[in-house]
Parts: sequence; C-alpha cells; structure tokens
Amino acid sequence: MPRWSPDAALRLEAAAMDLFERQGFAATTIPQIAEAAGLTTRTFFRHFADKRDVLFLRDREFPDAVGDVMTSVPLEDSGPAAVRAGLAAACRGLEAWRRPIARRRTIVHSEPALHERELLQRHHLARAIDASLRARGIDVPQTRTLAAVAVMCFDLAMQKWLDGPDDLLLEECVASVWSEVRDCLDG
Amino acid sequence: MPRWSPDAALRLEAAAMDLFERQGFAATTIPQIAEAAGLTTRTFFRHFADKRDVLFLRDREFPDAVGDVMTSVPLEDSGPAAVRAGLAAACRGLEAWRRPIARRRTIVHSEPALHERELLQRHHLARAIDASLRARGIDVPQTRTLAAVAVMCFDLAMQKWLDGPDDLLLEECVASVWSEVRDCLDG
Repeated sequence: MPRWSPDAALRLEAAAMDLFERQGFAATTIPQIAEAAGLTTRTFFRHFADKRDVLFLRDREFPDAVGDVMTSVPLEDSGPAAVRAGLAAACRGLEAWRRPIARRRTIVHSEPALHERELLQRHHLARAIDASLRARGIDVPQTRTLAAVAVMCFDLAMQKWLDGPDDLLLEECVASVWSEVRDCLDG
Repeated sequence: MPRWSPDAALRLEAAAMDLFERQGFAATTIPQIAEAAGLTTRTFFRHFADKRDVLFLRDREFPDAVGDVMTSVPLEDSGPAAVRAGLAAACRGLEAWRRPIARRRTIVHSEPALHERELLQRHHLARAIDASLRARGIDVPQTRTLAAVAVMCFDLAMQKWLDGPDDLLLEECVASVWSEVRDCLDG
C-alpha cells in the first residue's frame, strides 16, 4: 500500500460507489470504504468530512468553475446571455461524466441525507452564479432571479440527460429546457 | 404539567425558536427544548424525529395543502394557470405567518444542516405539485418543468416578501417574481 496516493480521493469515491450500490449507504462504513480502496481511514478523513461527502467530490470545484466560465463571457452580453453561455460551457465539461453521474444519482436518491446534501450543492452553485453576475454590475434582485433560473434549468437538463439515450448531450438538454421553461411561463 | 397537551408541538416549536435564537442551534439540546416548553423529551419525540424537525412543523402539511388547492382549480385551466392559481392560494394561507417564518429563516440559514432540510422540503413541494399536474392529465416532462418553476418562483417570492416592508403581500411577490423570471428567460 503506498503511503501517499495522489489519486486517493478518486479511489475512495470509486470504492464508496461500489459499496453503496452493493450493500446500501447505511450499511457501509468509512473503514470499509478505506479498506476497499486500499487506504486508511485517516486518509479518508484527509479528503472527506464524512461518509456523504465522498459522493460529492466532483461537485467541489463546480461552483467556482462555473463562476470562472461566466467571468470569461464578454461584459457586453446581457445577464441572461451570460448565464446561458456559462451553463453551456459548464455542460460541455460534464459530457464525459454521464455514467458516474447517473450511478451517483441512483445512490443519492435512495437516501434522504444524501439528497439533502445534493440540494445544498445546488444552492452553492446558485450563489456562485449570483456572485459572478453581481461582478458584472447587474443589480441584486435580478442576479438572484437569474441564478435561480440557471440552477433550475441545469437541474431539469441533468434529469433529461440522464433519462435520455446515450448520445444525448447535456448542452442540448439545457437549451431545450430553457425554451420549455419559457413556454411554461408564457402559458 | 398536563399529561396530554394538544398544543405540544406548537409549544415545542416556540421553545426551540427561542433557544436557537438565544444560544444557537448546536448548543441547544432536546431536553432543554422540552423543559422550556414544560414537556418531556418523550413528548418531543412523539412529535418530532430530531432536533432539526422542530423547525419544520409548519411545512409538514404544506405540500399536501398545495396539492389540494391545485385539485380545486378548474380542469379547463392550462397547467401554468393551475400552478399560478395554486401558488396564489397557498400564499394567501401564509400571509399571517410572516413573523415566525422570518425568525425561522434566520435560524435555518445559520446552520447548514437546517438549510439542507429546508431544501428537501422544497423538493417535496415540487413533487406534490408534479403529482397534482399529472392528475390533471398533463404529460410528465412538462409537469416536472412546471413544478420546478412553481417552487423556484415560490422561493424567490418568499425572499422578496421577508426582505420587504411589513405590508407587502406574499401573493403580490409571487406575481411580480413570475414576470421577472419570464423577462430573464426572454432576455
């Protein structure tokens, strides 16, 4: 067993997903996850705060990444245009992860404590988008509305993507969801 | 101390809010809440599953209540019209609770574990709205979109209401948020 493992977090994530799928979230312990990954419990806690946290490794940098993407959108674009561009870029970064994201969704929805954590991640995403819009000089009530719209569309698009055929793109789902939401509000 | 208290849940809620405000959520114990309410710990657990739960007494029946309201909307109304009517009616039922809802928000946002629970409540609300729309014969992807829009607008309206002057109505906030969201999507 190596004493230092640069891919420790990823190995722990993979081991946890396997165990959660096979024996359930509640029945799995942190020592079991560490052992299955060939690592120690101490290493687990160097990377994750608790058992739920191991499923949200890929979300950790996502709000900041989306904020960075939005900072790169030309300032002359309107708030909604910036949000759409930011969402599209973020989605392109996720296209390769369809399978682990789908596996995770099944586990997360089987356990309210995990589902709560996922919803909190969405809230952090909304705050990051809100901050990036404020940095563009957009006023506060509108930034909040835009951030909420962005996260809702992202969420609906994610569901559509994971429920759809293998060759469906998340970026296409976001575009079609945006139109569907607009139609709902006009209806 | 009465052995049976029909208002036990409300007394426990009031005692918990006072204690959480005064000494913080983490520092407050369930025996302290029960004692402050003049009740036993056993009575606490008859009404609430855990310490977080005591803050969500008023949310318990909310998803069903919104579902019932939507069932009473004429079937010839479109999905979006039914959602707007349902939201308006639900808001009218909350107008009198501005002060306890505002107090609770402060406590909930001070503690991630409470915030997660609040977000899960919103998810239950979305599912109740989705189910009531399916019962109207609306198709599944559209019901999901409409339910997400409804909950997002409710959430944004709730923030606007609690941040606004005392005489602002939640029902007015929902109507103005709906227009703002539409403008964002058109922009």
